Amino acid sequence: MSKKGILTVISGFSGAGKGTLVKELVERHGYKLSVSATTRSPRPGEEHGREYFFLTREEFESMIEENQFFEWAEYVGNYYGTPKAYVEEQLRLGNHVILEIEIQGALKVKEQCPEALLLFVTPPSAAVLKERLVKRGTETMETIQKRLFRGAEEAAYIKDYDYIIVNDDLGTCVEETNSIIINETNRTIRRQDFIRELLEGFKEFQEGE
Amino acid sequence: MSKKGILTVISGFSGAGKGTLVKELVERHGYKLSVSATTRSPRPGEEHGREYFFLTREEFESMIEENQFFEWAEYVGNYYGTPKAYVEEQLRLGNHVILEIEIQGALKVKEQCPEALLLFVTPPSAAVLKERLVKRGTETMETIQKRLFRGAEEAAYIKDYDYIIVNDDLGTCVEETNSIIINETNRTIRRQDFIRELLEGFKEFQEGE
Repeated sequence: MSKKGILTVISGFSGAGKGTLVKELVERHGYKLSVSATTRSPRPGEEHGREYFFLTREEFESMIEENQFFEWAEYVGNYYGTPKAYVEEQLRLGNHVILEIEIQGALKVKEQCPEALLLFVTPPSAAVLKERLVKRGTETMETIQKRLFRGAEEAAYIKDYDYIIVNDDLGTCVEETNSIIINETNRTIRRQDFIRELLEGFKEFQEGE
Repeated sequence: MSKKGILTVISGFSGAGKGTLVKELVERHGYKLSVSATTRSPRPGEEHGREYFFLTREEFESMIEENQFFEWAEYVGNYYGTPKAYVEEQLRLGNHVILEIEIQGALKVKEQCPEALLLFVTPPSAAVLKERLVKRGTETMETIQKRLFRGAEEAAYIKDYDYIIVNDDLGTCVEETNSIIINETNRTIRRQDFIRELLEGFKEFQEGE
């Protein structure tokens, strides 16, 4: 009756604080991080198996043929994808896995793996998002404007996610996210084994009388 | 952007500890209890509006005609039902409401009110359920046997509920249930207003540039 782990897919607006949230979930609560595969070259400081699995085009394409990705896409001449093997092994061991990915990828994962839990991270409002992007000071106003424009498009997909995570205060947001994932382990669709054993128990018991 | 309350419907095996769980949710966490209506006569100590709303057949039937019940049924010559008015008012005020009801009633409520959250309370196993019923010592072995037989039938409906609550330790069970309900307030289907305001925010903002 041990519980399987949950694959939690996290998306959200650029500037919503997804990266920090994911980092905290790993450090504070022991979540495992799904590592993507790519055919682009490693940048200085990047390690195979940490930032990405760095593969050749041939390796990547043979994995596509063998259906070894939850999702993959080609972007500016390089492949990017989420390999199934590591995630599935961790879930079997009862570990929760986090996958940070953009919306189209997240929806593909949900198709392949309907038990995946989809969380969308957002600041309390569009105005707060703009404020944060401006304060960060790492991007030109033109880039910020583009990000906000994309935000409006992305917001239309929030309804396809299971939960909204409002990132107002990081600490609260981390604990809220952890709590949502823990509670989801008790959802009936995730407790099929328990329900089966319970039914068996009633049967055996009645036969024994 | 204030959140509406959630209507939580609690069912479970007889002997699973639903009554105590509901009582603790009300006392520790301020949940509001949905009060049923009935045409049966009050028993000594029962109060109108506390145990039940005691109605005449005429009153009950006119409420049926006016679609004022989430669900109703006739049982041994008396009507029993869940009036909508009180529940809907509490939800509007942002209060969470608990309704303890058997399975057929729970499924009717879900039909009428798809946002309702259905929780099924169970002991860890059929064997533990029997043990508890025997220890309680208030029923004959024949009645216990009947309850267990019904348990086997009821277990087939667990899949129609949203969550399983395993009542092993009462304190844990109360906190787990409260946590599930709180987290459900962040489910996207319950945050339509927030999503709408978020989208508006992006639009206004872009028009303002």
